[in-house]
Amino acid sequence: MNQKLDEKARLTEEETLDPQDWGDMRRLGHRMVDDAMDYLERVRERPVWRPVPENVKAALRSPLPVEGQGAGAVYEDFRRTVFPHGMGNVHPRFWGWVIGTGTPLGALADMLGAAMNPNIGGGDQGANYVELQVLNWLKEMLGYPEAASGLLVSGGSMANLVGLAVARNAKAEADIAQEGVAAARRSMTLYASAETHNSVRKSVSLLGLGRSALREIPVDDDYQIDLAALRRAIDEDRKAGRHPFCVVGNAGTVNTGAIDDLSAIAEICAAENLWFHVDGAFGALAALAPRLKPLVRGMESADSLAFDLHKWMYMPYEVGCALVRWPEQHRAAFVSPADYLAHLERGLPAGPIWFSEYGVQLSRGFRALKVWMSIKEHGVSKYGRLVAQNCEQAQYLSALVTASPELELMAPVPLNIVCFRFAPRGTDGGRLDKANEEILFGLQESGTAVPSSTRLGGRLALRVCICNHRTRREDLELLVREVIERGHKIMGESVRR
Amino acid sequence: MNQKLDEKARLTEEETLDPQDWGDMRRLGHRMVDDAMDYLERVRERPVWRPVPENVKAALRSPLPVEGQGAGAVYEDFRRTVFPHGMGNVHPRFWGWVIGTGTPLGALADMLGAAMNPNIGGGDQGANYVELQVLNWLKEMLGYPEAASGLLVSGGSMANLVGLAVARNAKAEADIAQEGVAAARRSMTLYASAETHNSVRKSVSLLGLGRSALREIPVDDDYQIDLAALRRAIDEDRKAGRHPFCVVGNAGTVNTGAIDDLSAIAEICAAENLWFHVDGAFGALAALAPRLKPLVRGMESADSLAFDLHKWMYMPYEVGCALVRWPEQHRAAFVSPADYLAHLERGLPAGPIWFSEYGVQLSRGFRALKVWMSIKEHGVSKYGRLVAQNCEQAQYLSALVTASPELELMAPVPLNIVCFRFAPRGTDGGRLDKANEEILFGLQESGTAVPSSTRLGGRLALRVCICNHRTRREDLELLVREVIERGHKIMGESVRR
Repeated sequence: MNQKLDEKARLTEEETLDPQDWGDMRRLGHRMVDDAMDYLERVRERPVWRPVPENVKAALRSPLPVEGQGAGAVYEDFRRTVFPHGMGNVHPRFWGWVIGTGTPLGALADMLGAAMNPNIGGGDQGANYVELQVLNWLKEMLGYPEAASGLLVSGGSMANLVGLAVARNAKAEADIAQEGVAAARRSMTLYASAETHNSVRKSVSLLGLGRSALREIPVDDDYQIDLAALRRAIDEDRKAGRHPFCVVGNAGTVNTGAIDDLSAIAEICAAENLWFHVDGAFGALAALAPRLKPLVRGMESADSLAFDLHKWMYMPYEVGCALVRWPEQHRAAFVSPADYLAHLERGLPAGPIWFSEYGVQLSRGFRALKVWMSIKEHGVSKYGRLVAQNCEQAQYLSALVTASPELELMAPVPLNIVCFRFAPRGTDGGRLDKANEEILFGLQESGTAVPSSTRLGGRLALRVCICNHRTRREDLELLVREVIERGHKIMGESVRR
Repeated sequence: MNQKLDEKARLTEEETLDPQDWGDMRRLGHRMVDDAMDYLERVRERPVWRPVPENVKAALRSPLPVEGQGAGAVYEDFRRTVFPHGMGNVHPRFWGWVIGTGTPLGALADMLGAAMNPNIGGGDQGANYVELQVLNWLKEMLGYPEAASGLLVSGGSMANLVGLAVARNAKAEADIAQEGVAAARRSMTLYASAETHNSVRKSVSLLGLGRSALREIPVDDDYQIDLAALRRAIDEDRKAGRHPFCVVGNAGTVNTGAIDDLSAIAEICAAENLWFHVDGAFGALAALAPRLKPLVRGMESADSLAFDLHKWMYMPYEVGCALVRWPEQHRAAFVSPADYLAHLERGLPAGPIWFSEYGVQLSRGFRALKVWMSIKEHGVSKYGRLVAQNCEQAQYLSALVTASPELELMAPVPLNIVCFRFAPRGTDGGRLDKANEEILFGLQESGTAVPSSTRLGGRLALRVCICNHRTRREDLELLVREVIERGHKIMGESVRR
C-alpha cells in the first residue's frame, strides 16, 4: 500500500508537455485543419499579399513568455497575428522569385511526419526506407543513374553546396578533407555562366575556395553560357598553372529560365576531366514533361545534380535534393567516424544507410514523407502535365505581351519565366525603370498580383515566374491589363507633375 | 455568350493539385489528426521500437508511381507501411543518442506552417516577424546579448557550420570569402576538446580548413577540456608560425554531457584574440533551469553560439539556432549581391531583415512557427522545469546504478546523460563488452527501451540520454531491472557454452 502511494506521488510530481486533455487537443487539431483548408480553398478570393500592419508588428515584439497560455489561446494568437499575413505564394497570382505553392496534402504530411518525429540520420526505421524510395523515384524521374547516391536537403542552396563539396574533394590534388584547400598545389577554379544562382557563389565562398575561384562566363542572347568563352577560360587557367576542376551547368536560370547546353558542357567536362555539376533548382523538373525533356538533355550525365521539390513540384517548404553519380566520393566528402555513432549490425542503428554521412546534417527530419505522399497522390505524369501547363502559361503571357504595343518582352521564354516591362512605343526610356518599379509596387501593395523584378541589360524588368499549380490563364490576362492601366496612369501622372 | 463559353472551356482544361472535393480533404485531415493524437496518447502502451519487417521494406521498394492513387489511398498506405515503424523517440523509454521527443502542438504547428507555406528568405510578411521574435526570445532565454544576430537552422550541425564560417572569415588575415583559405598567409588552426561533436570536424573539413586544422585537446576525468593543454597547444601553434583563430567550447558533450569551463575559455579567447564558439547543442538549454544555469556560465560571452530546439526543447525536427554576437560579421560571411534579390524599399521585398543573407539557405521554411507556438504554449519556466527534471532523472538513474553491485557507472553525470554497464564484481572484463552489446540489442529488439552505446576508455558503455518529457522515474527503474536480468542471463548462457 505504502509503495503504491509512493509510486503515485512520484508519477504526479513529474511533468510532461503532453496535453492534460487529449480530447481538447484533438478538437483544436480539427479546427486547425478546417481553417487551413478554408484558407487554401478560398485563397483566390483574397488579396495575394498585403503589407504587415504596424499593430501586428508590435504584437510580434512582445517579450519572452515566462508562463504558458495553453494551446487554445496560442492558436487564437496565431489566427489573429500570423495567419492573415502570409507571403501569398499559395495564391494563383503569386509569381515572384522562384517560389512554389504547396498543396493541402503536403501540409498534412508535414504534420504526420512531425507527429512521428523521427530523426533520419540513419537506422532501421520506416522513415529511412521512405527516403531511400523517394530518392530512387527522383532518380528515375530525371533519368539519373540508379546507382547514384542522394540526399533530401533543405533546398537548392544546400544541394549545390553538397554537390560542389563533393566536386572539390573528389577532384583535388590533395586530401582536402584532412589537409584543407591550402594543401592543393595549384589553385582550384570552377566555371559557370554569369546568370548562375547566387547560391553557387555562396557555396564557393563557404568551401574556402573563394568567390574569385568562380569564373563567371558570359552568356549569349538566350542567356545560355557561351561555350567558346568557357573553353577559353579553362584553357587560360591551365596555361596560368591553375587547376580547373568543375563546371556548373544551369537548368533554368533564376532570371530568365535559360537552360545551358548541358550536353556540350558534359562533353567539355569529359574531355577536360572536370566535375560536371548541374544546378537544376527548378529547371531540372522540365524532364517530367515529355515535350520539354529535350531541353535538359545532358543533365543525366552530370556528376552531381541539385534541384528543389518545393519549387516546381509544388511541395511545401523545405525540400530539395542532391544526387551524386559517385556514391563513394559523395560519402567521403562528409563522413567522419565517431564512437557514439558506431554502426552496430543489430538493433536500431542497423539499417540500410546513414544519410548523415552524405551531407551537413546529422539530425534530419522526415521531409521525405511529403514527397512520398505527394508523388503517390498525384503520380509523376500529372506533375509532368503541370510543369508543361506552367510553361504554356508562360508562352501565353509572352504572347499577350508581344501583342501589346505598351509592353516589351525583355528576354526569351524557354521555360516558365517571363520578363517584360511597360514601355509604350515612343516613350522616354529614362523614365521606364521608375515607372515599372511603381507598377510593381502597385501590383503588390494592392494585392492584385506578385511578380518580382530583376535587371536585364541594366533595365528593370517585371519578372513573372510560374511555379504555381493554381494559376489560370485568366490570371495572366488580369496581370497584363493591370500593368497597362497602372503604367498609363503612372506615366500620365508623372507628366502632370 | 460565346466569350463565356470560351472562358469556361479555358478554365476546365487547366489542372491543379488542389483536391476535387475539399470536404474529403477536410475529413481526411481530421482522421490524420485523430490518428496522430492516438499515436502519441498511447505511445507508452507500445514497444519503443521494432525492426522493420521484410514485407514493409519490400513495399517501400515499389516503383515510381506514374498515375496518382488519390489522397485517401495514400494515407492508407502510410498507415500500413510507415506509421507503425517509427524510430521510437516519441516513447517515454527512448534515450538513444541525443534525440528529442516532439509534442502534439509542435506537429500541428508544422501543418499550419506548411499550409501557409511562406519562404522566409526575407520580406514583409508575418513569418519573418515571427522568426525575429523567436530569435529575440532565444537570446533572452540564454542570456545572450540582445544586439546579436541569429538564424533558425536545420539543427546543431548547421548552427556549428554557420558559427565557424563567421569565425573563419572574421579572424582571417585575408579576404577569405573572396580569395579563399589559401590566401591566408599563415595556416589557420582551431581548438576543441577530444569529446567535441563530429559536426565540428565536418564543418572544418567543409570550410576548406581541413580536419588537421582542428586541434583535439585532451579532457580531464570529468571529460572537460584540459585548459593547460589548450594553452600549450595555442602557444605551440603560434611559435610554429601558424594562426590560432578559434576555440570551440562544449556545453554538453555528446558522450557524457560534460560542460567545458566556458568562462575560462572565454578568458583565453579574449587574451589571445580568438573567436569563441560554443557548441551548446543540448547543453545550452541548461540555462533555462535556475539550478543548472551556473554550469554554462561564460556561454553568454561567446562570439557565436549553436544549439538545438529539437533536442532539449522537445520540438519536432528540424530546428536549431545559430546566434552571433557580431551581426555585421555574420552577414558578411554569407551575403552576396544578386539582381533578382535587390531589396526594394516598398512592396513584399521590403521588411526588416533578409535571413537568407545570414546562412546557407536562400529558401527557408516556417520552422519558426513551431518554436513560437510551443514557447507560448508552455512558457519558458516550464521548459526550465523539464530540463531540470531530466537532469534529476539522470541523477536518479545514476543512483540506481551506483546502488547495484552488478552495474558500473562509467562517467560523471553532470547533466542528462548516464553511461554505465553491466559489470558484476569479479567478472572477467574481457567478456563485458560483448555482454553489454547483447544487452543493448536485447533492450532495443524487444522494444523495452532504447539506449544507445558509446566507448569510454576503450570500453563499451550503455548510454542513456534523457531529452524526453515523457520519461518517468519508473521507466528508469524498469531499465535497470532489465539490464541486470538480461546481463545475468547472457553471462550465464555464455558460461554454459
